[in-house]
Amino acid sequence: MQNESGSTASVPLSEIQTPALLLDLAKLDANSARLKKHLDQVAPDILHRPHLKTAKSLEIAEHVLRGREQAITVSTLREAEIFARAGFRDILYAVGIVPSKLARVAAVREQGADLKIITDNADVARRISEFAARTHMTIPVLIEIDCDGHRSGLRPAQSDAIVAVAKALTDGAELAGVMTHAGGSYDAGNSQEVAAAASGEVAAIVQSAQILRDAGYSVPIVSIGSTPTALSVADLSGVTEIRAGVYMFFDLVMAGLGICRVRDIALSVLTTVIGHQPDKGWIIVDAGWMAMSRDRGTASQDVDQGYGLVCDPDGQPIPDLIMESANQEHGIIAMMPGSAGSLPDFPVGSQLRILPNHACSTAAQHGHYDVLDSENRVIANWQRFGGW
Amino acid sequence: MQNESGSTASVPLSEIQTPALLLDLAKLDANSARLKKHLDQVAPDILHRPHLKTAKSLEIAEHVLRGREQAITVSTLREAEIFARAGFRDILYAVGIVPSKLARVAAVREQGADLKIITDNADVARRISEFAARTHMTIPVLIEIDCDGHRSGLRPAQSDAIVAVAKALTDGAELAGVMTHAGGSYDAGNSQEVAAAASGEVAAIVQSAQILRDAGYSVPIVSIGSTPTALSVADLSGVTEIRAGVYMFFDLVMAGLGICRVRDIALSVLTTVIGHQPDKGWIIVDAGWMAMSRDRGTASQDVDQGYGLVCDPDGQPIPDLIMESANQEHGIIAMMPGSAGSLPDFPVGSQLRILPNHACSTAAQHGHYDVLDSENRVIANWQRFGGW
Repeated sequence: MQNESGSTASVPLSEIQTPALLLDLAKLDANSARLKKHLDQVAPDILHRPHLKTAKSLEIAEHVLRGREQAITVSTLREAEIFARAGFRDILYAVGIVPSKLARVAAVREQGADLKIITDNADVARRISEFAARTHMTIPVLIEIDCDGHRSGLRPAQSDAIVAVAKALTDGAELAGVMTHAGGSYDAGNSQEVAAAASGEVAAIVQSAQILRDAGYSVPIVSIGSTPTALSVADLSGVTEIRAGVYMFFDLVMAGLGICRVRDIALSVLTTVIGHQPDKGWIIVDAGWMAMSRDRGTASQDVDQGYGLVCDPDGQPIPDLIMESANQEHGIIAMMPGSAGSLPDFPVGSQLRILPNHACSTAAQHGHYDVLDSENRVIANWQRFGGW
Repeated sequence: MQNESGSTASVPLSEIQTPALLLDLAKLDANSARLKKHLDQVAPDILHRPHLKTAKSLEIAEHVLRGREQAITVSTLREAEIFARAGFRDILYAVGIVPSKLARVAAVREQGADLKIITDNADVARRISEFAARTHMTIPVLIEIDCDGHRSGLRPAQSDAIVAVAKALTDGAELAGVMTHAGGSYDAGNSQEVAAAASGEVAAIVQSAQILRDAGYSVPIVSIGSTPTALSVADLSGVTEIRAGVYMFFDLVMAGLGICRVRDIALSVLTTVIGHQPDKGWIIVDAGWMAMSRDRGTASQDVDQGYGLVCDPDGQPIPDLIMESANQEHGIIAMMPGSAGSLPDFPVGSQLRILPNHACSTAAQHGHYDVLDSENRVIANWQRFGGW
């Protein structure tokens, strides 16, 4: 989309080769504004440290965060390296560190970024301390807390183990705080359960910070995460920062949780009809699981959207029409089971848009975003990266 | 792994950053030799046109095919463009064409590659003919046949529709043959069902070729696909070429079908233990669904391998140990439900290898292959590409 002078021409969707990952800029902006407004209301002084594991794009980061000053969260050291090189200065790598990755952490810190790491393990804390002592580096470490049993972290009830990790941080390895992630909120049945997950997340992290303070430690950062809880939480007392990522895009899983409306979803996959099997009620398109991912996150929700909800080229959902199944480069579109509607007629060559179950996994299948203006014209290509 | 002179140094796995996609070269070679031997026995004169949708790598293509002379199959025009630019000359794009992609087809053909396309639709055939007339190009077209109801294509019983497509190919749009893909064989319950799928695939394509010949058309190419059927088929009479792709890698779905042994699987994901939840029987590793993909292809088989079967760093499977669930960058490893075994002790920092459910989807999550020699040392980085 970019011409030689660096400015962009606007291109209609009909000229875009499919499948392609579309990003609706107005929705991205509205979603970003919504979280900001919510946090301004419930906790005006809290630090928002957006998680960039979904975006993985410098252009999106700079657009949404209005520059490179804001603190960020990442899910891989590659993200840390790329965002640090681009000038981001306060980065939390929110996956448990292992000793074999410390040299890369040190290299990012030496470039001038304040990269923080996490662990839930006293042995690892000792290894970080040995590394810090040997390299004469300062390495800030957050202790990972498990607030809902879904993944890593120490439970607040394991107070001795939490203190043991803090105690094992010596020399340049400094206790920077505690963090948790209410990933269990993705499995909530409704917004009440999400709100309960949010309260539980706050309670667990505040309790963990208190355990460490009672043991004599300073705990400057008290950090929670997850988009559902970030948008639901009413009382953030004792929390210093919040990490959300999917909030800027949203997806069908979030809509199924009641966290957003379907029309808020900023990402979709543009596809072209390549064939039909009329006797089966199938429309076949050129977006298969390679374009959508294998994510079936709505399968366990009240409404199973298959591999995604089908929209017209303007992004308007077509009632009850879903991608029922997917091969590598073929998507099979059909009416939702039990629908009273009839299959619309889309001749070969028609374009459709598919809303994703899970923004993180669908975006990861693509090398760039085709960025849309409010008239559904592509005004920019924003690159995204993968890898570790 | 490559030094400045272009030669490669050998690196132990312990020095590889995780997660990483490993390719066991000896297994790749043995798997490739197995299909060659099988085809030499059952149909020495048949053309093998390997499907490169799993590999998506020039180095693998050149290694397995011993150069750039062999005919190949691709699943995207991007594959066609990259392989054509590298010198491959006979390429079949095996996904139904749409008119908006014909300009790219023409560009590849103008570069000197004999790119063939497919359709199952008379309207599209007319559009191809119009394009060929307008551009004065020759475009070989295969008619897609549906042998098992799993996706696109015309059924042999739709003889009038098959002939109508052939009839709509005029000017430079030339009927090059018929092709089908027994994708339903992936859902077979056992090797007997796979063999039945193979017979059905051959019968459907031979019948379709005969329909066209009876209508007065020449049908030079009679093409079937799918790794399970390629390795099972006993009688290829009437078939001129076979397209298989996963055969060079294999995966747990293929092992579950009885098409290969677990020890034949050439791809695995190297991962590092980042934590434990002892009361839950969990080992947590740094390969989540971003490294494995969301593919749960074994879920519908007799043995559900979760997100993959866990091996030691040398690639030896650890009985009953699987990746039970996955977050974006976290894999949760546990004993298979019902196992009598007990969770092995792997401290934080230990490396493990995970065999994938589905080679195509797991490989697609990675930017390169770390290529292993027989001593499990990395001897090369082979790049892979994605996109459309």
